[in-house]
Amino acid sequence: MDAMRKLIERYVPIINEELDKATRGKPEQLYNAARHLLLAGGKRVRPSLTLTYARMLGGVDGERKALPFAVSVELLHNFTLVHDDIMDKDEYRRGVKTVHTVYGENMAIIAGDLLFALSFENALNNSMVPPENRSAAAYLLSKASRIVAEGQALDVSFEDTWTVSIDDYLDMIYRKTGALIEASTGMGALAVTLDKETVENAMLYGRNVGISFQLKDDVLGVYGDPAKTGKPVYNDLARAKKTILVLYAVRNLPPDESAELKRIIDMKTSNLELLKTAAELIEKSGAKKYALDLAKKYSDEAIRIIEEIEPADSEAKNALIEFARFVFEREK
Amino acid sequence: MDAMRKLIERYVPIINEELDKATRGKPEQLYNAARHLLLAGGKRVRPSLTLTYARMLGGVDGERKALPFAVSVELLHNFTLVHDDIMDKDEYRRGVKTVHTVYGENMAIIAGDLLFALSFENALNNSMVPPENRSAAAYLLSKASRIVAEGQALDVSFEDTWTVSIDDYLDMIYRKTGALIEASTGMGALAVTLDKETVENAMLYGRNVGISFQLKDDVLGVYGDPAKTGKPVYNDLARAKKTILVLYAVRNLPPDESAELKRIIDMKTSNLELLKTAAELIEKSGAKKYALDLAKKYSDEAIRIIEEIEPADSEAKNALIEFARFVFEREK
Repeated sequence: MDAMRKLIERYVPIINEELDKATRGKPEQLYNAARHLLLAGGKRVRPSLTLTYARMLGGVDGERKALPFAVSVELLHNFTLVHDDIMDKDEYRRGVKTVHTVYGENMAIIAGDLLFALSFENALNNSMVPPENRSAAAYLLSKASRIVAEGQALDVSFEDTWTVSIDDYLDMIYRKTGALIEASTGMGALAVTLDKETVENAMLYGRNVGISFQLKDDVLGVYGDPAKTGKPVYNDLARAKKTILVLYAVRNLPPDESAELKRIIDMKTSNLELLKTAAELIEKSGAKKYALDLAKKYSDEAIRIIEEIEPADSEAKNALIEFARFVFEREK
Repeated sequence: MDAMRKLIERYVPIINEELDKATRGKPEQLYNAARHLLLAGGKRVRPSLTLTYARMLGGVDGERKALPFAVSVELLHNFTLVHDDIMDKDEYRRGVKTVHTVYGENMAIIAGDLLFALSFENALNNSMVPPENRSAAAYLLSKASRIVAEGQALDVSFEDTWTVSIDDYLDMIYRKTGALIEASTGMGALAVTLDKETVENAMLYGRNVGISFQLKDDVLGVYGDPAKTGKPVYNDLARAKKTILVLYAVRNLPPDESAELKRIIDMKTSNLELLKTAAELIEKSGAKKYALDLAKKYSDEAIRIIEEIEPADSEAKNALIEFARFVFEREK
């Protein structure tokens, strides 16, 4: 991760400065609400991918032109987080109270909407790229926002049913997580080129990386070391999330064990004994291996796409390959 | 209103058909929630203004090219209504239950977000106009969404204070109502031309019409005939809304009467005797005349802008002049 880490370390302060500039306005309370979570931290992975992809294709000039798009992507990401937190009634994120907890639900709804609007305003105001590129990039952003909304609705609908297939699940995580990463890298490409194949490859890379990331997240949510992930042990199981592990296990365990697993999950329990039993049942079903193999497949596909590219900047190319490996290999 | 009415009557079925096409997708529950209010009716004033403006400047060809922009504007308008209804906890709109009342608050938040996304997707997918125009139109749309969010936050902040000046109020209604109408006519112009002055005039027309509309709305909210407006008598007073009438009156009545008016408004009462007293105090202050004079000023300015335009379609020009007069003269 050295090449990627080096880039991200350079990008984060630049992105943070642009985010700060992009979110100034009146009334003050609204803008404070919109900035609350946005400037409280965050790894800036999506905008870093936008910048790195643009740099790979167009060198430092490409990177420069992609900056407003990178900012757009992070604004859009934060809009989804603000509304997600309202819907999930979560009280904390990034170590601070959530927007609706501090500013009330109504102001949080408007603050999310404002971030959404600013995301588009920022992308469409990118005068460093021709109007064709600007309009194509904003179009990607709009498609991604639509797909994310579909993913959120799917995620909600999965809560009350066991009739979710593995394909349904992969489609949901593509929508909820993959689509915005797909747009992030696609917009990075669009800062440099309108070439259809190049842009499609950028999107495919982002899509594969995003899905691999989420699959690995599912595995860490059950088998991750709480000391490393920073999340409670068996966190996903206690929250009754129908991750790929659970879905695979209930389909591949013998009927009685499958029923037992469903029963524990549906309890939404925090009883460690029960959760440990669930984790063992999942392990026994082969779900962990299945999920990791699948995550690796998506990660490999992302790497294959990048390896074929003739880069303007080979350091950025290496960083993108490293990153695709990292999302799959990470322990936190 | 004959020219405008004739145009709107022709536009409404076309707009409704496009709105129907623009909001199909999965998951079904989400799209049903997004279509619930959208297809329950609505006067389609904003998209009709987009089409009429484009027709005035570019004839039937301009009108045709503006259709995706018209659809965008109506989608954005409905997004704001869906989120507004959640925030105001309103149960009915357009004679049907509000989205959150039927689908729950979470689904209504996502449905609003979806309409927002579809609004941009639709505008940016308008391949009948060059990318420059598309990108400029979407930029107007993004600015309008940002300004509407600011207006909503201002409106909320006005609830708990009497330190709102007339200028504050005019700024708020520009943001909450004028900005999207400004974008509607601006985008109509952008379907035909990139000429800066032409687009700016289109926006100015929309802005003036929008503000005039809201000022007249304030007058009708107190002095309107409930049989014509379809709203309860003294509706705005009972809801303690700080309209221009109230703000003008508390500033221009003698201190004791001003205090009396504030007291009644702050009670949020539905007592008809008290509300009648408030309405009489407002009338006595000269606020009604002040508001109507101001509404006429904005309406006249909108007409002046249109009168100077050399139209491609003079019927559309007449319709826009009529409409600016109508928003001020209407009794419902």
